[in-house]
Amino acid sequence: MASPVNPPRGMRDFLPVDKARRERVLGVIRSVFSAHGFDEIETPVMEDSSRLHAGLGGDNEKLAFGVLRRGLTAEDFATATDSLDLADLGLRFDLTVPLARFYATHRAELPTVFRAIQVAPVWRAERPQKGRYRQFVQCDIDIIGEAGPLAEIELLTATADTCAELGLTGCTFRINDRRLLIGMLETLGFPAATHDQVLITIDKLDKVGQEGVVAELHERGFDAAAVDTLDAFFRRPRPLEQPSFGEQAIRAALPAGADAAVVAGLAAIGLAVTGGRIEFDPFLVRGMGYYTGAIFEIEHPDLPYSLGGGGRYDGMIGRFLGADVPAAGFSIGFERIVDLVRLRDDESVAGVALVYDSDVTSTSLMHLKAELIANGRRVRLERAPRNLKPLLAQLAASGFVEIAMVSAGAATVADLRMRKLAAE
Amino acid sequence: MASPVNPPRGMRDFLPVDKARRERVLGVIRSVFSAHGFDEIETPVMEDSSRLHAGLGGDNEKLAFGVLRRGLTAEDFATATDSLDLADLGLRFDLTVPLARFYATHRAELPTVFRAIQVAPVWRAERPQKGRYRQFVQCDIDIIGEAGPLAEIELLTATADTCAELGLTGCTFRINDRRLLIGMLETLGFPAATHDQVLITIDKLDKVGQEGVVAELHERGFDAAAVDTLDAFFRRPRPLEQPSFGEQAIRAALPAGADAAVVAGLAAIGLAVTGGRIEFDPFLVRGMGYYTGAIFEIEHPDLPYSLGGGGRYDGMIGRFLGADVPAAGFSIGFERIVDLVRLRDDESVAGVALVYDSDVTSTSLMHLKAELIANGRRVRLERAPRNLKPLLAQLAASGFVEIAMVSAGAATVADLRMRKLAAE
Repeated sequence: MASPVNPPRGMRDFLPVDKARRERVLGVIRSVFSAHGFDEIETPVMEDSSRLHAGLGGDNEKLAFGVLRRGLTAEDFATATDSLDLADLGLRFDLTVPLARFYATHRAELPTVFRAIQVAPVWRAERPQKGRYRQFVQCDIDIIGEAGPLAEIELLTATADTCAELGLTGCTFRINDRRLLIGMLETLGFPAATHDQVLITIDKLDKVGQEGVVAELHERGFDAAAVDTLDAFFRRPRPLEQPSFGEQAIRAALPAGADAAVVAGLAAIGLAVTGGRIEFDPFLVRGMGYYTGAIFEIEHPDLPYSLGGGGRYDGMIGRFLGADVPAAGFSIGFERIVDLVRLRDDESVAGVALVYDSDVTSTSLMHLKAELIANGRRVRLERAPRNLKPLLAQLAASGFVEIAMVSAGAATVADLRMRKLAAE
Repeated sequence: MASPVNPPRGMRDFLPVDKARRERVLGVIRSVFSAHGFDEIETPVMEDSSRLHAGLGGDNEKLAFGVLRRGLTAEDFATATDSLDLADLGLRFDLTVPLARFYATHRAELPTVFRAIQVAPVWRAERPQKGRYRQFVQCDIDIIGEAGPLAEIELLTATADTCAELGLTGCTFRINDRRLLIGMLETLGFPAATHDQVLITIDKLDKVGQEGVVAELHERGFDAAAVDTLDAFFRRPRPLEQPSFGEQAIRAALPAGADAAVVAGLAAIGLAVTGGRIEFDPFLVRGMGYYTGAIFEIEHPDLPYSLGGGGRYDGMIGRFLGADVPAAGFSIGFERIVDLVRLRDDESVAGVALVYDSDVTSTSLMHLKAELIANGRRVRLERAPRNLKPLLAQLAASGFVEIAMVSAGAATVADLRMRKLAAE
């Protein structure tokens, strides 16, 4: 026997049952996003290396697979000092950098406020581990050209509707604003130059807890008085264990002096979003450095990780375009939800298997098949095996609902005796 | 203004209208193939370089994009003499090599006769030119594990039905068999060692004509007597200008002594396929070296090139599996048909645009939107522009069918006056 043959490390094949399930879930996501007025676009899987490595992708840039330039010579190899010397293209590591490039290319052909859907694979050269793949699908919606909170409101509402349609009930949106985070750090006494670094530690709150964050901030040598003020802030008595959303609730969860306009904007978002529970989280950070305003994550009560997230990133599109354009987006972690969702039974096409004896002619088989297809059925031909049982089990598992045994002489479907197949 | 920003050379972005059209055509193709009993699978876009370069992809292997190995060192660069020394993965150049690898990986989990659908992009580092792209979509169906002509019959019938469903009427299948081709060359006197090379020239018949082929064969120095016999065979009087299909017609188009069993098998295929015109073409070659039996191409009267093709390739799957498995496949050239097909109007979701004044609150806008979505509509919010006309034209072009102007105070959809939008 030949040695085992596998897909590349960290990448997956999808067998028919898995592929069908994935496509159905993607179909639901696409159709809800579309109902909310978003339009699907597509970009090539590769972008020029210079764009992938323009500093917009954070740590993910380091994980981009490089694609070798064509026509390399021995001299090219000899003089190369870095992979980028040999790779003029790379596989996208997210859908946001390609969207920024797409918008810069096609702005003149797009509506003033452009609502984009992208449902597509991305690639990251990560160490493969359980639940982490080197090729995986992201489902992004983005609104480009809308500076007001209506963008965030539409994104969150469309996402809440999508989760509901997928049977993911009880989801909570955690919301914050980058400007409130920065304001909080200022009020607590952290010097401006340390904010980005302090946020990296605060981002670990879910994993290491408040004491862990305070310990790490001390360890990393940030302003000790500021860290102690943060510690005291963590320990203060809270007016509500789980504050409801609104201007007062937001203000109560922050140190005094929060920017009133930002607080009002955030409260307006929470007020208008329908279909999901909203919770203000003053310590929600989101990893990517490009966020400039509201940021959000969505969580499910049964899961220890977020199902997706996003935020406003007003500076980014301008990097390729040379003119600032406001933008906000939300990305659903498709691989995290696909095994979780409950779909209604797919009753669109009922499958019939025709199990035929060896003396049945191809011509009569094809006539029976054509007649059934014309009646809206899905038809699978199967040569009659010695033992029928395993075949029946396999057909039922593949979603076929009926079988008919076909003997020589069966000319039309009326000659067949259909039998229901029960899935185990 | 920033310098123009474009997708990588030879690759395309798809704007909403194009993306929607492509997805709808792919949806039709998938659903017809599925009705015919085929199951969709998916493989990663990359395969190990060793598999891509195993000699199964013909000339296309040279066009595979290489993906750089991770963690390369200066020494790796210095000692590399070939791109493959640095690229352990490559982007697939077709869907047949990945299918063979997939089948070898998962054979135990698949039905005895496995009918696969693959609808997915492939990449080729070709010189970009009109109608040739470096990323393009292929639609393949394959039947693995069926040695008899039923495989070819199901492939051709499913393809004929797909073309009909796409409004591509009047298509013709040209059919031949590799074994008849080889038999013909033997009968005409070409030594066995020259057959592959002779076929490369005969494959140019459509482009250079019979005289061109004969001239090139002489020029390239093949057995002159054999070339003259071929020339005489070309010029012989034909019993029918366009032979109908069947054993007699096939035999009449070939030199005497054609293999009777192969002729009978090919005739059986033509007899059972429904829904497409079948034509025997004794000079149909198909480029790929891996074909072992029947080969076919599909043509449309309005087009100078074939819309797709395929054939039987019994030796190939065994290359990865270590055991011979019969297989046959058909590939539709998606990029060649997508602009050609006629689709029925998409009336599934009627789009409404809500054009709102600046004093309308987000909350009431979102309530109106939710009410319309709940009624099965697709909703786009648009801030009222100074000049409404360009917006209306753009909305109509994007498939929206109604608009309503929203002023402050509109609380429910009943308060709105809907207006039909006419597409230009």
